Amino acid sequence: MKKSRLEAFSDGVIAIIITIMVLELKVPHGDDVHSLLPLLPEFVSYILSFVYVGIYWNNHHHMIYTVDSINGKVLWANLGLLFWLSLIPFVTAWMGENHFSRWPIMLYGFVLMMNSIAYIILARLLVLEAGPDSELAKAFGNDKKSKVSAAIYLSAMAISYFYPWVGFALYWVVALIWIIPDTRIEKHVPGKDCPPAE
Amino acid sequence: MKKSRLEAFSDGVIAIIITIMVLELKVPHGDDVHSLLPLLPEFVSYILSFVYVGIYWNNHHHMIYTVDSINGKVLWANLGLLFWLSLIPFVTAWMGENHFSRWPIMLYGFVLMMNSIAYIILARLLVLEAGPDSELAKAFGNDKKSKVSAAIYLSAMAISYFYPWVGFALYWVVALIWIIPDTRIEKHVPGKDCPPAE
Amino acid sequence: MKKSRLEAFSDGVIAIIITIMVLELKVPHGDDVHSLLPLLPEFVSYILSFVYVGIYWNNHHHMIYTVDSINGKVLWANLGLLFWLSLIPFVTAWMGENHFSRWPIMLYGFVLMMNSIAYIILARLLVLEAGPDSELAKAFGNDKKSKVSAAIYLSAMAISYFYPWVGFALYWVVALIWIIPDTRIEKHVPGKDCPPAE
Amino acid sequence: MKKSRLEAFSDGVIAIIITIMVLELKVPHGDDVHSLLPLLPEFVSYILSFVYVGIYWNNHHHMIYTVDSINGKVLWANLGLLFWLSLIPFVTAWMGENHFSRWPIMLYGFVLMMNSIAYIILARLLVLEAGPDSELAKAFGNDKKSKVSAAIYLSAMAISYFYPWVGFALYWVVALIWIIPDTRIEKHVPGKDCPPAE
Repeated sequence: MKKSRLEAFSDGVIAIIITIMVLELKVPHGDDVHSLLPLLPEFVSYILSFVYVGIYWNNHHHMIYTVDSINGKVLWANLGLLFWLSLIPFVTAWMGENHFSRWPIMLYGFVLMMNSIAYIILARLLVLEAGPDSELAKAFGNDKKSKVSAAIYLSAMAISYFYPWVGFALYWVVALIWIIPDTRIEKHVPGKDCPPAE
Repeated sequence: MKKSRLEAFSDGVIAIIITIMVLELKVPHGDDVHSLLPLLPEFVSYILSFVYVGIYWNNHHHMIYTVDSINGKVLWANLGLLFWLSLIPFVTAWMGENHFSRWPIMLYGFVLMMNSIAYIILARLLVLEAGPDSELAKAFGNDKKSKVSAAIYLSAMAISYFYPWVGFALYWVVALIWIIPDTRIEKHVPGKDCPPAE
Repeated sequence: MKKSRLEAFSDGVIAIIITIMVLELKVPHGDDVHSLLPLLPEFVSYILSFVYVGIYWNNHHHMIYTVDSINGKVLWANLGLLFWLSLIPFVTAWMGENHFSRWPIMLYGFVLMMNSIAYIILARLLVLEAGPDSELAKAFGNDKKSKVSAAIYLSAMAISYFYPWVGFALYWVVALIWIIPDTRIEKHVPGKDCPPAE
Repeated sequence: MKKSRLEAFSDGVIAIIITIMVLELKVPHGDDVHSLLPLLPEFVSYILSFVYVGIYWNNHHHMIYTVDSINGKVLWANLGLLFWLSLIPFVTAWMGENHFSRWPIMLYGFVLMMNSIAYIILARLLVLEAGPDSELAKAFGNDKKSKVSAAIYLSAMAISYFYPWVGFALYWVVALIWIIPDTRIEKHVPGKDCPPAE
């Protein structure tokens, strides 16, 4: 029961984040199909960010599902994750409006990396609370996937300074790593068809 | 219990989508009744979209109600539906601001059709999970209504190129098909007064 | 269980409506205390609308609490109420920006009246579903309060054409009628300290 | 069960408040890293307000968790708290856009103080309902922390007239007082790692 409000509040914040990004798609003044073209980079940014926020919601859902109780530190770690998620609409808009130039792509990667770190902190605190023999501890394992993601984000930020589009492509690579279920870890999670908890 | 967060998150996103559309009704500068007239097309667009999002929420509510468990693919199919729903405020505003000219009406129909397809995919995945003898499989049946809707959307898009208002009228026709309860299918759904699950 | 999603969705929509109104309080450009003065009419409008949306949420909460089951018509009647509630931010902004001139005050009253009618329709459908001996039917009674409110709204709209401020004052009178608990009806409602269900 | 909708509605409103503040971070026109610098004061304001809204959500969560039933007065006291919370995005934006000049900082402190008062009223009404021997009454105690906070807010507002930055620093001090758990009170609250209910 206790965790139900954490879930409800997180669902609310994530639902708002994923939806207000669409407000950045400013309605064009013209009424022909060509007037939509300048929106294309913003639309592509929107899709990527929608996918990322969706991944975080999915993983958050699975992770909180496996725990029984939460504590005060978890509440703040969760707020930390929500804080970094709340910056995604801002960097999405900056990246889309500037047609994927260098700095916006680097900042986008930085916010993704901070989200990743905030998520790891939240997961560690939940594992501490649940104990080393808990399902969550097993599912989280040695956390290879998160480490790989963080490494790719860092590389992508560096590469973006020289080849912004390569950095942007790498963000899609990480997204795909998370969408395609990791069957190896999946075994430890109750629901048999569930994506991994982390 | 598992599906409760899927419901909560979907409720949150749909609630935001249905509400932020009203932000497109920009407050007029004048203070007499005539200054409201230019808002009329946007208001009519708002009503249509409100009805459509309401239909999707109602059907989503009934469909998820009949299933016991969900899986990872369902989570993503649900996000796919929410993605296309999130584009409704954008096409509503474009259609309203351009007084129902050709391309905005065609794009509006395209987004409605994609929503319809996303909904069918979600329903199919839920039927797969629930099994062929489940209530949902019976209620979903051969899915005649969805097929008719998709056909009308496609026709409406083609007709809109020549007669935009006819296309716009056809979107209302589909909306009415869904609001007026389909008593034949209704039998399979638990609540006796409920609109059909699909 | 069935009504839980109706509650969740309504809570979401009403929460958004009550919160986005504050976005109409545009941040002033100056940084001294005098630059806040032009916002005063918008702030007063905001308070009134916040109170009204709060009243509707409170009453909705009590009304749905007393019923056991809902049907398809109730879902649509509820969407009807949410539709009219969603127009409150628009009329609030129009009234505030035009410093309470004639037409904005009349339109504000019209939207309040339509909300009142939408609420009565929802209540009647719930009473039909719950039966004439239900708690709700007794609490709703002969619905004197709603009739008085509707009469005051109509009078206020007419008076506003000549004396806008009198109309505005009458909207506050109706709000106070609903905030101050009606002890006579209260007896029929389970929670002893609750405001009346209707 | 009764309190579940109070929680759901409050979660919704607080989730929206904490998220719409990020909309005030207007996307810069330039695409280099320097174009982000002018946003720094707004970003710092955003962080402080995010922390404050987070504190209120945390405390609200704990406080409502300990009570069994609510009444009509509690519903209105809760709306009062939500009203003052809803003004935080406005004062945050005014403070950030004016680079922490005198009046915006004073108004920010005023809204914090009113939030504090609204919270105390809500807590008192809940204690009245729960009775003097309830857990909540013990946890709330003589309410030293709230009194200290209110005193600091008042001092900060006065000091801000002469040294705005000192006032701003004091708001951070109060935030830290609430984040760092008060172990003495904590004993009375069920969850052993929870921050205090008040």
